[in-house]
Amino acid sequence: MILVLETSTDLCSVAVIANGKTKSKIENNIQKLHAEKLISLIDQTLKNINLSLDLITAIAVSIGPGSFTGLRVGLSIAKGLCYTTGKPLIAVPTLDALALKATKVCEVVGRYIDDALYVCSILNAKQNDFYYSLYKFQDGKLLRTTPYLFGNADEIMREIKRGFVLIGDGIVNLKENLYNQDVIFIDDDEFNHPDAFYVGKVAEDKYKMGDFADIASIEPLYVKEFTIKTK
Amino acid sequence: MILVLETSTDLCSVAVIANGKTKSKIENNIQKLHAEKLISLIDQTLKNINLSLDLITAIAVSIGPGSFTGLRVGLSIAKGLCYTTGKPLIAVPTLDALALKATKVCEVVGRYIDDALYVCSILNAKQNDFYYSLYKFQDGKLLRTTPYLFGNADEIMREIKRGFVLIGDGIVNLKENLYNQDVIFIDDDEFNHPDAFYVGKVAEDKYKMGDFADIASIEPLYVKEFTIKTK
Repeated sequence: MILVLETSTDLCSVAVIANGKTKSKIENNIQKLHAEKLISLIDQTLKNINLSLDLITAIAVSIGPGSFTGLRVGLSIAKGLCYTTGKPLIAVPTLDALALKATKVCEVVGRYIDDALYVCSILNAKQNDFYYSLYKFQDGKLLRTTPYLFGNADEIMREIKRGFVLIGDGIVNLKENLYNQDVIFIDDDEFNHPDAFYVGKVAEDKYKMGDFADIASIEPLYVKEFTIKTK
Repeated sequence: MILVLETSTDLCSVAVIANGKTKSKIENNIQKLHAEKLISLIDQTLKNINLSLDLITAIAVSIGPGSFTGLRVGLSIAKGLCYTTGKPLIAVPTLDALALKATKVCEVVGRYIDDALYVCSILNAKQNDFYYSLYKFQDGKLLRTTPYLFGNADEIMREIKRGFVLIGDGIVNLKENLYNQDVIFIDDDEFNHPDAFYVGKVAEDKYKMGDFADIASIEPLYVKEFTIKTK
């Protein structure tokens, strides 16, 4: 069982997932996330299913990009919990969790292109720039096919081909550039935001591979970690 | 803002929704729902967004079909809250909320048949029988095209045409009958269960139409309310 914290946007969520299923989840749409509130949400998430923290196998946290304060609070609390309990920490890039969400929504209604899915996760950065990353989903596996990228709409447009699935808050600002192209926009509020469940699904795979973060050094994903495409 | 209770399955959820969006939601996958737990979940759902019950405009509840005890507890608590606060009660048939969920998942990835969607919500009843209902979604509106029905797999098979979208826990037991037909099964655990958010979306429409339940007489949807198709 993995305890998952997703605090990269105003829609904060905390979940416990096991074997790919939600055991307990809390979602909150609040403008400012306070550290005290997050601890209380974690406590509720566990207590609602009569679980104590020592039965958790790992703690996963979304490491952005996203709200600076949200990510700081989420990661700090995750580090604190891991430090005191000795549980491993799993760091999940928000773009990866969004891409997995996009593939699951498409998969559940059989929306494929040539038995595969091509996904682009796009999050707003400052001004007219975006954080983005491209993925291929085939045979049940999601593979990231680019580094984490930082660039403007023109750069993204060059990457997007027919049939691509686009997800993330950045797509609202790209829509007018792409409105006559045959792409799928996942822009409904209920489907377009990062969600502890999908952070947890990515984390389960990382757990199996022993892909744990170093508690002392892990930081939120900042632009310096990205490959800059904009000239 | 509507407070929503969904207790028709083991995956209980409580939410506050406003203008079609989740403000706060708690999901819990517990085998037995205790009345005390539900009150505590309601309390958390409100407190997590610093909301008091008097700011809620109505209380919505899923009225089944589903778990006998879950529906009894959910409806009783909803009635109690409405009785003491004077808020209106909105009763949402679980089949309607599931159908809306199916259309939203399809809509978000542009999965249509001739600009419309045909949905069948199917829930397990006893032995080899099912509760089910058919819907047409067009121009943003979901219309139920049959009464609430009760029947066996043969009866359902007669209704299902090419391109239909099937949702609900009953489809697992129908799958072998339909595996070579061109229909969409929404059978992923994360998408296939009743959810307070979609109960709330149906409730918002009912609220606009002033479609409120009578607190004194409303009961969970039992088989006697259904049109029996099985001979």
